[in-house]
Amino acid sequence: MAISRSELTPTGAIGAHALARRLGPWRPAGPRPAYAALADAVRVLLLDGRVSVGTAVPSERSLAEVLDVSRTTVAGAYAALRDTGHLQSRQGARSVLVLPVDMPAEPFDHGDEADVCRLNIAAPSAPDQVVHDAFRYALECAPAYLSGAGVYPSGLRVLTEVVARRYSERGLPTRPEQILVTAGAQHALRVVLDTLVSPGESVVVEQPTYSGTLQALARHRARVVALPLDTSHGWDLDHLESILRLQRPALVCMNPDFHNPTGLLLAADGRRRLGELSARYGVPIVIDETVVELGLDRAAPAPVAAFASRRAQVITIGSVSKTVWSGLRVGWIRTEAPPDPFAVARYDLGISGSVMDQLAAAYAVDELASFLPGRLDTLRAQRAVALDALGDALPDAVITPGGGGLCLWVRLPRPAATATAAAAVGLGVRLTPGSGFAPDGGLENYIRIPYTLGSDELRRGIDLVGRAYRQAIGSGAEPGEDETGLPGRLAV
Amino acid sequence: MAISRSELTPTGAIGAHALARRLGPWRPAGPRPAYAALADAVRVLLLDGRVSVGTAVPSERSLAEVLDVSRTTVAGAYAALRDTGHLQSRQGARSVLVLPVDMPAEPFDHGDEADVCRLNIAAPSAPDQVVHDAFRYALECAPAYLSGAGVYPSGLRVLTEVVARRYSERGLPTRPEQILVTAGAQHALRVVLDTLVSPGESVVVEQPTYSGTLQALARHRARVVALPLDTSHGWDLDHLESILRLQRPALVCMNPDFHNPTGLLLAADGRRRLGELSARYGVPIVIDETVVELGLDRAAPAPVAAFASRRAQVITIGSVSKTVWSGLRVGWIRTEAPPDPFAVARYDLGISGSVMDQLAAAYAVDELASFLPGRLDTLRAQRAVALDALGDALPDAVITPGGGGLCLWVRLPRPAATATAAAAVGLGVRLTPGSGFAPDGGLENYIRIPYTLGSDELRRGIDLVGRAYRQAIGSGAEPGEDETGLPGRLAV
Repeated sequence: MAISRSELTPTGAIGAHALARRLGPWRPAGPRPAYAALADAVRVLLLDGRVSVGTAVPSERSLAEVLDVSRTTVAGAYAALRDTGHLQSRQGARSVLVLPVDMPAEPFDHGDEADVCRLNIAAPSAPDQVVHDAFRYALECAPAYLSGAGVYPSGLRVLTEVVARRYSERGLPTRPEQILVTAGAQHALRVVLDTLVSPGESVVVEQPTYSGTLQALARHRARVVALPLDTSHGWDLDHLESILRLQRPALVCMNPDFHNPTGLLLAADGRRRLGELSARYGVPIVIDETVVELGLDRAAPAPVAAFASRRAQVITIGSVSKTVWSGLRVGWIRTEAPPDPFAVARYDLGISGSVMDQLAAAYAVDELASFLPGRLDTLRAQRAVALDALGDALPDAVITPGGGGLCLWVRLPRPAATATAAAAVGLGVRLTPGSGFAPDGGLENYIRIPYTLGSDELRRGIDLVGRAYRQAIGSGAEPGEDETGLPGRLAV
Repeated sequence: MAISRSELTPTGAIGAHALARRLGPWRPAGPRPAYAALADAVRVLLLDGRVSVGTAVPSERSLAEVLDVSRTTVAGAYAALRDTGHLQSRQGARSVLVLPVDMPAEPFDHGDEADVCRLNIAAPSAPDQVVHDAFRYALECAPAYLSGAGVYPSGLRVLTEVVARRYSERGLPTRPEQILVTAGAQHALRVVLDTLVSPGESVVVEQPTYSGTLQALARHRARVVALPLDTSHGWDLDHLESILRLQRPALVCMNPDFHNPTGLLLAADGRRRLGELSARYGVPIVIDETVVELGLDRAAPAPVAAFASRRAQVITIGSVSKTVWSGLRVGWIRTEAPPDPFAVARYDLGISGSVMDQLAAAYAVDELASFLPGRLDTLRAQRAVALDALGDALPDAVITPGGGGLCLWVRLPRPAATATAAAAVGLGVRLTPGSGFAPDGGLENYIRIPYTLGSDELRRGIDLVGRAYRQAIGSGAEPGEDETGLPGRLAV
């Protein structure tokens, strides 16, 4: 029956050239055999979701040709992937990437795999007591809602009111009718894409940008246009203008508030310019404000929308995931006029939102001032631990902390991010290499280190990342090793 | 700024022929002027979501030609739509359908529009006490989760365990690893479409079928193939086989358990046949079991998947929305092997689910036996009220209640469903005409009447539907009236 491992319907195939591009520089610099390094690199693509489960892999011959390795190396890599349960052969058809059956159903579940250190997730635990109090409040309010059908496609008024008030406090006067509630920021982005972008149309994103944004765009079959983001100079809005002029994209997605993964903050003049570009080129701009409240060294300027004229189209996305807790699935879309076209798309994408989560989120956003300072103190302390641990573990890495957010964007001395992430898996650490934040792979010099884990686990994880990096760059490979390094149990 | 009424970006245009098809037989049988009846019919399409907000309407000339009415009639209808805030003109461009600015942001909000009787929603209120107790339980469990990031893309184990057990009880042995949690059944369907269907591919649905299914398919840009469902003979699986043989669709979506809107139940032999068809034609079949627990006259047979061989691909979708409460946003996908490809798509479609809703849903599903009999009694009583009220309000309508679910599928004496729904709006009642459940319009003889409102409101609403129907069929139209009936204030 459905999607059994033996009859898996492939969800697509990846060609040899496309796979080679995503692999980036996977070749081992150290003594690790080439087939094993290739298997590791494919596994990391799969675990990171950069190649989907169910994807059919290229033939051994074609991949060997494109990678310029022997067919034995590819065969060995495929065999190794089969051994670890990541590849499945099908009679008379291409092999398909799968997840091992004994892997926990939750790829990111903190509970089920206690020994794994998840440096691939930038989401803090819930602030002491606040979420508990928020649900006590929700429970008190519940009777008024339980007597109805519970269907509020645009969101509960009690929540849109506090979200609107928070925007007004931040310098962007907002009415509750301008807020459409969603099930988080990622869900909000899909609602915006469903409303404004047709498959095949172009969408501009920063490079690097949040991996979830890239995955949403890939699912929507949008064409991604990258605006390189330079960690020393920030956003190049002249470059953005040239993209808008020449390519006429359907949408621009920007993350100017403690940008994920770099932590960068766009200054007020850049915000004004974004609004002008939207108006001049008639292109809607989505501003992802997920971590805007997490200014560690400085507060963010007013929202981009506050700088925009009425001729601009600025759509602001927010969420309580990072400010409060990711277990609360509440985000929103703010537009200048009532967001009706988005409301219809949101309905089609899941009817309505959780009533209790919305009540709890309303409480938490209203109480922000009471717990946010403590949360920022904790994050500052954890960031200091991360910087200290990185100084020990990767002394030659270059780190330019942004002014806030949840991550450090770490430039490695050598372009070995994918190999480091692959080696880290073996050491019990999950880590997203730079290519996870790059529309077309690349950024092999970078890894993202979130500082959302507790200090001890954070330090332990970063120490292991250092070990993984050293394994990855190791000593030089022996010539011909990729031909001879296959263990005997492999019959290929 | 964004989506302001004066600069609305159209989300698409609808041609005159397509609009005419969706309008169905809108012409007034009574004394109502043609321009007003046309405006009513367009308004109903918009309010039902069968034409999206933001859609550009055809030119007056082309629509007049296709509808074979005078251009003045179309101009009058457009002017009437503008007057009520449903159409917006744009300099040098086609007019666009919008929602009035003073409409509540929640099109279905029970709280904000107290006087509206919503017979367009088939969702009951929460069963006494159960949801409250469920959230008390959730609050007790919460501390164990609050110390983590709250990110569980495949769902909480405590929930997948009780859902799996319930399948096993119903005759389909299931392990927790086979369950992927989603934010409701509509969300689950989008996850399945994202995983298995490319835009432009064909998907088979019953005609009629749930309007939300049609909206999801339209958003996904799937091509819909209708399998007509005859209320007296049920599913024509020979016809389905001919579709599978000739059209090779990418997916089949069936709702065999108290089908929405007809309430029909597919018998065991039909279930077996569905499994055989999936295996023979290699096509995945999605079974929407949203109301499977709501057997009022009889219980449903075992799930379709229990009748399928291992060569079939049956994907089962469930939800607590109708069994427990729609304010709890918890649904799931059950597959035979771990649903990994769907898990990746679910992640891309909103990362993870509400932790508290999942804990509450786990409690409620576990407690099903304690509250379901009472819920079924209530629904039976409300169905009796609805049947009685329909006997008074629409004595010549034909109603064949299915064995369960939440709706009656009412055949009107004359094909006036759209006009009835339009007239109902004026009487404070929202109602979905048959065409809302038909992939290409049509089914003008039918309206759907849910029996989820309390008895008094239900009776009041149905009485008003009777009035609306009589208004809609009224007396015969005066010849030439559509030319002369425009009120003077219209300058067109």
